[in-house]
Amino acid sequence: MAFALSLSELAQLTGGNIVRGGLASSYSGMAALDVAGAGDISFLGNEKYRGQFLTTAAGAVIVPLGETEGPEGTALIAVENPSLAFGAVVKHFAVSGRPFQPGIHPRAFVDPTAVLDAGKVRVHAGAVVMAGASIGDGSDIGPNVVVGEDVVIGRDCKLHANSTVRERCVLGDRVILQPGAVIGSDGYGYEFVDGRHMKIDQVGIVELGDDVEIGSNTTIDRARFGKTLVGEGSKIDNLVQLAHNVVIGKHCLVIAQTGIAGSSRLGNYVTVAAQVGMVGHVTVGDKAVLAARTGVTRSLEGGITYYGDPALPFAEGQKLRAYARRLPKLVEDVKALKKSIEAK
Amino acid sequence: MAFALSLSELAQLTGGNIVRGGLASSYSGMAALDVAGAGDISFLGNEKYRGQFLTTAAGAVIVPLGETEGPEGTALIAVENPSLAFGAVVKHFAVSGRPFQPGIHPRAFVDPTAVLDAGKVRVHAGAVVMAGASIGDGSDIGPNVVVGEDVVIGRDCKLHANSTVRERCVLGDRVILQPGAVIGSDGYGYEFVDGRHMKIDQVGIVELGDDVEIGSNTTIDRARFGKTLVGEGSKIDNLVQLAHNVVIGKHCLVIAQTGIAGSSRLGNYVTVAAQVGMVGHVTVGDKAVLAARTGVTRSLEGGITYYGDPALPFAEGQKLRAYARRLPKLVEDVKALKKSIEAK
Amino acid sequence: MAFALSLSELAQLTGGNIVRGGLASSYSGMAALDVAGAGDISFLGNEKYRGQFLTTAAGAVIVPLGETEGPEGTALIAVENPSLAFGAVVKHFAVSGRPFQPGIHPRAFVDPTAVLDAGKVRVHAGAVVMAGASIGDGSDIGPNVVVGEDVVIGRDCKLHANSTVRERCVLGDRVILQPGAVIGSDGYGYEFVDGRHMKIDQVGIVELGDDVEIGSNTTIDRARFGKTLVGEGSKIDNLVQLAHNVVIGKHCLVIAQTGIAGSSRLGNYVTVAAQVGMVGHVTVGDKAVLAARTGVTRSLEGGITYYGDPALPFAEGQKLRAYARRLPKLVEDVKALKKSIEAK
Repeated sequence: MAFALSLSELAQLTGGNIVRGGLASSYSGMAALDVAGAGDISFLGNEKYRGQFLTTAAGAVIVPLGETEGPEGTALIAVENPSLAFGAVVKHFAVSGRPFQPGIHPRAFVDPTAVLDAGKVRVHAGAVVMAGASIGDGSDIGPNVVVGEDVVIGRDCKLHANSTVRERCVLGDRVILQPGAVIGSDGYGYEFVDGRHMKIDQVGIVELGDDVEIGSNTTIDRARFGKTLVGEGSKIDNLVQLAHNVVIGKHCLVIAQTGIAGSSRLGNYVTVAAQVGMVGHVTVGDKAVLAARTGVTRSLEGGITYYGDPALPFAEGQKLRAYARRLPKLVEDVKALKKSIEAK
Repeated sequence: MAFALSLSELAQLTGGNIVRGGLASSYSGMAALDVAGAGDISFLGNEKYRGQFLTTAAGAVIVPLGETEGPEGTALIAVENPSLAFGAVVKHFAVSGRPFQPGIHPRAFVDPTAVLDAGKVRVHAGAVVMAGASIGDGSDIGPNVVVGEDVVIGRDCKLHANSTVRERCVLGDRVILQPGAVIGSDGYGYEFVDGRHMKIDQVGIVELGDDVEIGSNTTIDRARFGKTLVGEGSKIDNLVQLAHNVVIGKHCLVIAQTGIAGSSRLGNYVTVAAQVGMVGHVTVGDKAVLAARTGVTRSLEGGITYYGDPALPFAEGQKLRAYARRLPKLVEDVKALKKSIEAK
Repeated sequence: MAFALSLSELAQLTGGNIVRGGLASSYSGMAALDVAGAGDISFLGNEKYRGQFLTTAAGAVIVPLGETEGPEGTALIAVENPSLAFGAVVKHFAVSGRPFQPGIHPRAFVDPTAVLDAGKVRVHAGAVVMAGASIGDGSDIGPNVVVGEDVVIGRDCKLHANSTVRERCVLGDRVILQPGAVIGSDGYGYEFVDGRHMKIDQVGIVELGDDVEIGSNTTIDRARFGKTLVGEGSKIDNLVQLAHNVVIGKHCLVIAQTGIAGSSRLGNYVTVAAQVGMVGHVTVGDKAVLAARTGVTRSLEGGITYYGDPALPFAEGQKLRAYARRLPKLVEDVKALKKSIEAK
């Protein structure tokens, strides 16, 4: 397949149906609907952008099944999931990153007791791999990353620049750490003795399952003892705080700036939107969804969407929010009632 | 001008008028109103500090135009903007930082394919400049900073310690990154396929315009494709999260711990106070102001100050907040009404 | 004392009383109540875990004084503070960290003008200690840490990987920085001149008192002039933002994701729970407690627990929260009243 794509090549690449052709004979780039030109492929992945779709100058647009109309001259390809299909286009046109090249950079430091195959692992300049650490084949340790003593890293992991994994923590296979992520900082634990906060030893670890991704500058504290756990396939966004002994189940999503206090647990397939706060020692059941900014102060059943602070089932939470806006009117109503009663 | 300042030298330095003299003949330091002594210069920049002003022991105070009274023995200099004028005093007395000295530290690593003039750029110990990156004259790459592959950095930039710029991102001139800032981490994007969250390639970049400043440990995700953009002159505080494809206009202020979700846009001269949350795919117009902790769930017109969650025009938002405090009284009133009706 | 503990050795180690014996003759590990087996020691430190306690399979449990019942076969040791006592068990069983070994790693860079005793200080690989910095005996500078120019670090400090201390900041003795912490980034200060935000020089410093601990990726800005201060014994959790000129008193606790704006002050022994926001230029008195997510918009008296946004004394804040849930019912009540009045 050439770099530029014809419409039929595009249909093949995305597994879509050609709804109709357009003016351009091929496409050499990709762009958002509002900035795309005749040589660009775009997609309609969110109804919010229908306005932009109707006036786009894109050469071709990937649309949801059933979509038949569009701006004149623009070809349409229909697929079940336009965003997913567009991913194939992105892959096709992407500036290919420089290829993975194994080897330990002369400006990296790898302790002689660390266990790794220098022919299969890449360690970039400035990275530090400490005593007793082990790194699986295919893993890529970015510049100025720190891999602490006795850390275990699986295969095909990618630790981006300036991320840190403290001593004895364990990463599964295909784990990604975005820049600045911190795995295994001490849990926040003190005992108040004679007017001073005495530090409680935090001797546990953090374990990240296979296919976990951790966002930039997110912090995950090691357990007091035992382990803080992020289950297989879960994805944690940027600037999230997971305290000691937290357990995140499998295939969860935890969005930016959320904080989960010590020993709380999420089941599997839980979605936690941005800026949520969760107290310690509570549990959220499988497949629960917490809307942005929800405040979780008690354990919550799975399978339900929650909203508000404190968390309520979504409809109830939304209703309270709507009623709050009626308060000034309500106060007036009560005043009027008082008057009319006094008048009787 | 000598290091110690006389009152007339102070007037000249600040462009102010001498309202009245004081006891000290010269000043050799600067301090806040509540801790200043006879040899110190201070300023009254905020009415909250009037109490401290009235009892200060400072030798001289820079005050707003029109101010004529003050503690006995304290000289007064009147200017339009005391805080700005005090900046000149700060500059005068500041411990001068060690001067900019170009050169690549022997403990830095600069890839041979990187483009920079070692006689005009400074690269500190431990910094890593990767293949294909280019750095403009006068820029200062701090210790343990990582400049990724093919990154473009303009002139006179300052990247503080441990900050990270990932591959292909573009920084204009005079950009400042505070320590730990992350530019170009992957956007948070997954497609749910067969019970697993599949990573969507994030092949775009982040572009920071001229004179942009990014706070410590703030995270800015690269675009899925195209670019995440922070416009010329905008200043982002610490621990802020800007998601993929966000567009911040020119000369905006975004204060600490705010989060802006994917593809949302700010116009120019927008002010976003601390701990605000903004959903994805919305727009905030030019010169809008969002009070601290505002929740933005829909697009907002420019030129207006907003407050509350969801965001309302400021007066309306404040009114709701005030009414909420009247709820217990309202419940009592309604109970009383019920009784009086039943009694009739 | 052998590695495995007998019940009497456990009593001696924790200073507790044997309430009753159990089936196991010795214990070789430790675990949480719900996962512990016959060879493990556990503890009941929080009433929330009583259910787990009643069904635990642990060999021995450290319980509060007065506790006499428990699952069959499980030994009980009673102490005043089970969590604290368990700390001794954790210390006993902990994988001992590799011992402190002084010395400057050949892959560290220490400027020749820095002042430290290489026989008493440890500087790890990749760390950078800049000109004029001084480091007290017993301190441990982690891998890829940056200690800026003229920084002063006391004795027995521990700076974890990838943390940053910018120029001239001062750390007392026994200070701990978790990974990625940033001390001394520029305060966020600009003057608006001719349509642009001009940076105000931030020439002050940050000072951390003895026994202060700073969480991972927390950011503390340097003062405009003078100093931002965290008093002796205070403990700051992860992802906290302390702006320029903030003063935290002694022995305070500030939990994760809290933000405190410029020049605000906490007294001594103040507790600030997670995700709190505090505006600038306000004061919170000694021994005040702020519940999670409290919004502080004015100065608050000490010795009181606060809740809500804006902050109210705890009972009042909780009452408002409870009343908010009665709003829909209240609206119905008022409608009914209207009808019944109209009917009369």
